Amino acid sequence: MASELDQILISYDQPDFRENLRERRKKSLLEKYQPFGTPESNQNLNLVRQIVWDVAQRGDKAVAEYTKKYDDVDLKPEEFLVSQAALEEAHKKINNDLLKSICQAIENVKKYQKEILIDKEKTPFGIKYTPIKRVGICVPGASAPLPSTVIMCAVPAQVAGVEEIVAVSPPKCNDSIHPDILAVCHELKIDKVYRIGGAQAVAALAWGTETINKVDKIVGPGNWWVQMAKREAFGYVGVDSVAGPSEVLIIANEKANPAWVAADMLSQVEHTPGLAWLLTNSKKFAAQVLDAINEQIKQLLRPDEITKSLKEYSAVVIEKNMEKLIENANDFAAEHLEIQCGDESRKIADQIENAGAIFIGDYSPVAVGDYWAGPSHTLPTGTSAKFFSALSANDFIKSTSIIEYSKEKLAESADDIIRLAEAEGLDAHARSVQIRQQK
Amino acid sequence: MASELDQILISYDQPDFRENLRERRKKSLLEKYQPFGTPESNQNLNLVRQIVWDVAQRGDKAVAEYTKKYDDVDLKPEEFLVSQAALEEAHKKINNDLLKSICQAIENVKKYQKEILIDKEKTPFGIKYTPIKRVGICVPGASAPLPSTVIMCAVPAQVAGVEEIVAVSPPKCNDSIHPDILAVCHELKIDKVYRIGGAQAVAALAWGTETINKVDKIVGPGNWWVQMAKREAFGYVGVDSVAGPSEVLIIANEKANPAWVAADMLSQVEHTPGLAWLLTNSKKFAAQVLDAINEQIKQLLRPDEITKSLKEYSAVVIEKNMEKLIENANDFAAEHLEIQCGDESRKIADQIENAGAIFIGDYSPVAVGDYWAGPSHTLPTGTSAKFFSALSANDFIKSTSIIEYSKEKLAESADDIIRLAEAEGLDAHARSVQIRQQK
Repeated sequence: MASELDQILISYDQPDFRENLRERRKKSLLEKYQPFGTPESNQNLNLVRQIVWDVAQRGDKAVAEYTKKYDDVDLKPEEFLVSQAALEEAHKKINNDLLKSICQAIENVKKYQKEILIDKEKTPFGIKYTPIKRVGICVPGASAPLPSTVIMCAVPAQVAGVEEIVAVSPPKCNDSIHPDILAVCHELKIDKVYRIGGAQAVAALAWGTETINKVDKIVGPGNWWVQMAKREAFGYVGVDSVAGPSEVLIIANEKANPAWVAADMLSQVEHTPGLAWLLTNSKKFAAQVLDAINEQIKQLLRPDEITKSLKEYSAVVIEKNMEKLIENANDFAAEHLEIQCGDESRKIADQIENAGAIFIGDYSPVAVGDYWAGPSHTLPTGTSAKFFSALSANDFIKSTSIIEYSKEKLAESADDIIRLAEAEGLDAHARSVQIRQQK
Repeated sequence: MASELDQILISYDQPDFRENLRERRKKSLLEKYQPFGTPESNQNLNLVRQIVWDVAQRGDKAVAEYTKKYDDVDLKPEEFLVSQAALEEAHKKINNDLLKSICQAIENVKKYQKEILIDKEKTPFGIKYTPIKRVGICVPGASAPLPSTVIMCAVPAQVAGVEEIVAVSPPKCNDSIHPDILAVCHELKIDKVYRIGGAQAVAALAWGTETINKVDKIVGPGNWWVQMAKREAFGYVGVDSVAGPSEVLIIANEKANPAWVAADMLSQVEHTPGLAWLLTNSKKFAAQVLDAINEQIKQLLRPDEITKSLKEYSAVVIEKNMEKLIENANDFAAEHLEIQCGDESRKIADQIENAGAIFIGDYSPVAVGDYWAGPSHTLPTGTSAKFFSALSANDFIKSTSIIEYSKEKLAESADDIIRLAEAEGLDAHARSVQIRQQK
C-alpha cells in the first residue's frame, strides 16, 4: 500500500478532518471554478461580464470576434449554424453500433423522464403547468466530445413538451463540432446547432442576435466561462445551475468489492479535475481500495493527471460509526453518491438528504447514470445539491397560479383583504376590493 | 375622456404597436431595474459585485459598514439580530383585527400550498424529494412595510418542511424593522430576524458571517440592489428569481365593469413603478375605463406618481380579434393576468401559456392574490413567466435521482455503456462497468 496516494487517507478522528475535506474541495473549486477570491479570478469574472454585455448589445459581430479571439476560428455569422447537410452526413457516418447504443439510451431517458414528469392532468385546481417554449443546450467540446450531454439535456426537455431546442458547442473539431455530437442532434431532430462556445455563446442564447433567436432557458455543462456567463444571464433567461468539477462520494463497508470501489473513484477523477471521496468504517477496506487504485491507475490513459486529482482533491475517510459517515455525507451534498454496503445500502440511502443522484448497491457505478439509466447526468455539484435538483423534465415546465373568486367569496373576505392592504399603505389595492362591494 | 392619459391608448392596428408596448416595459426596467446598458447602471452593477465580494470576505464588519453607509444606521454586529423581546412586543401590540386577518391569510396560504405540494409518498421509484434546510427571506422595508411578504415567502417554505427560516429587512423604521413585520415573524415562529438590507444582507445570507449562518436558498422581493445581489449569489445558494417592477395585464371585453378594471389598473401602478396594460376588443369599453381612471385617480393618496406610471409605462390596446389579444398576452408573459370577459373568461385562461398568476372573472382582483387566496404573491415579472414559476412550496424541495441496478441488469447493459464511454474517451468510466463483468 506504500505509495504517494497515502496522503489522501484521512481519519475521521483527526480533529481537523472536516476542515481538511473542505479544503480539498475548495482547492479544486478555487483552481478551476471559484468565481472570485484571487485577483486573477476577479479580473476574469469582470471579463465574462464584458463579453456578455458586448454580445447583448452588438450581437453577431461580437460573437464572431470572440470566436476568433478565444477559439481561433474565423466564422461569419451565417456560418455559426451547422448546415443540415453536415448534420445528415454525421448521422450517416456514425458507427452503427454506437448509434444503436445512443438510441437505446434515448429510449431509457425518455421512459424515466415520462415517469417522473409532474402529471398536468392530475394537478389540483389553482395551479397550471405549461412547458417552456425555447431551450438552449450548452454542449462541451473541449477535451472529449460528449454526445451524452445532448441526450441528457434535450430528452428531458422534449418529454416536457419544449417546442424548440437549440444547441451550442465550441468549434474544436476541424473548426466545427465533433460529428458524434452532430449525429445525436440529428437523431433527436435538433436542427439548430451553432458552432460557438464560451461566454459568447451563452450571451447569444440569452439575448438573441441577428441570426440566433433568444431562448427562454439555458441548460448544460461547460467550463468556467460558460458557467459564469450562465450566472450573468440568470433572470433574463432561466438557468439550470452553476456547475463546478464533477465529484463522487462513496459510502462503503467491507461487504463491498475494493477493486470496484477503486474503479469508481478513478472514473470520477478521470474528469480532471474530478473529485472522489470514500467514507468507510473499515481501515482494512480503505487500505484495499488504495492498493486497487495503485494497481488500476497504471492501466488508464492519463495516469498522471488522475494521480494529481486524487492527491490534491480526493480523500479516504475512516470512521467506525456509520451514523457519523452519513451525517458527513449529508453535509457534503455530493453530486454523485454511491452506497456499497451490502443489504444495508437502501437503508442508508433513505437517510441521505443531500445528493444529486444516489447509486445504490454494488452494480450501480456512476457510469450507469452517466449514460444509461434514465435520470439526467446533469447534476448539482459543490454542495449545491443542498438547493438544486438533478436536471429533469420538471425543469422544463413552469407553473402559473390560478385564482378565481365568486361574488360571494369575495364579499366574505373583503374586510380582511382591505384591512391588510391598508396596513401596508396600499389604498388602491384596498379600493379594488371595496369597489366590488358597492351597490 | 379628454385627458393627458389619452396617450396610453394604443390601437392594435398601428404597425408599431408591439414595439410601443415593449418600449414602455423596457423604459420601466431601464429606469429602475435594467442591470446594464447605461454607464450609470454598469457602474452600479459593478458596485453590487464589490459589496457582495466584500461581505463574503470580511463578514460582519463589512455588513456594518454598508449599513452605516447606505441605511445611515450604526449597528454593531450583535445588534443585527432583532431581540426576542422586540418580536414579542410587536406581536403583543399589533392591532387585534389586523392580527386576525393575518392569521386567516396564513391559514389560506397553508391550505393552498399543501394542496399543490408534490406528494413525496406518491413519487415513482427513481426520484426522491427532500426539503431545503435553511432559507433566507428578503422583506422590503422602504416605502411601506410589507408584512404580507413574510407570509407569502415563509408559509410555502414551512409547508415544504424547511427547518430554519431567517428574515432580513432594512432598518428603515426607527433604526429597526416595522413592528407589523416583526409581529408576523413572531406569529410564524421565525425568531431570526436581522435588521439589515440591500446587497449586503443578501451577501450575508449567501456566504454567512460571524453572526449570520449561511442559508441554502434566498427568496423574496426587494429593490434593484437586492435583486442584483441575488443574481451574484446564484449558484452559491438557490435564488427564486430576479424581480423587476410589478405589472398587470388585463384582458377584458364589454361584459366587464369598466370601473372595476380601472381600479385594478390603479392598484398595480400604485407600486410606482407599476405597470398596467389593458387589452380589449372594444373601443367603447377602453374609453369607459380611461374615464373611470380619471375619476378614481383623484381619490388616491399618491395621484401624481400614479399618473406618471400610467403615462410612461402603461397602455390600453384595442384590437377586435380576441385571438390576437391572447397571442399578445402570451408574448407579454405578465406577472399578473386578469381576465374579465364574462362566461368566456375560463376558456381564455385555458389558452394562456405564460403568466405568473391568472385571475379569472369579475371578482378576482389582483389584491385577492396579493393577500388572501393562497398562491404566493411572489411572482415572475418582466417576461420571466416564460421560464420562472410562481413561488410555491415546491420551490423549497429538491429532487435526488435514485439509480439501483442489479447484477443482471448491469450485465445486460454493459456493452452499450462501455461503448458510449469509450466513444467519449472516458476509459475509466468504461472500466468501472467492465470490472463488474469479470469472473
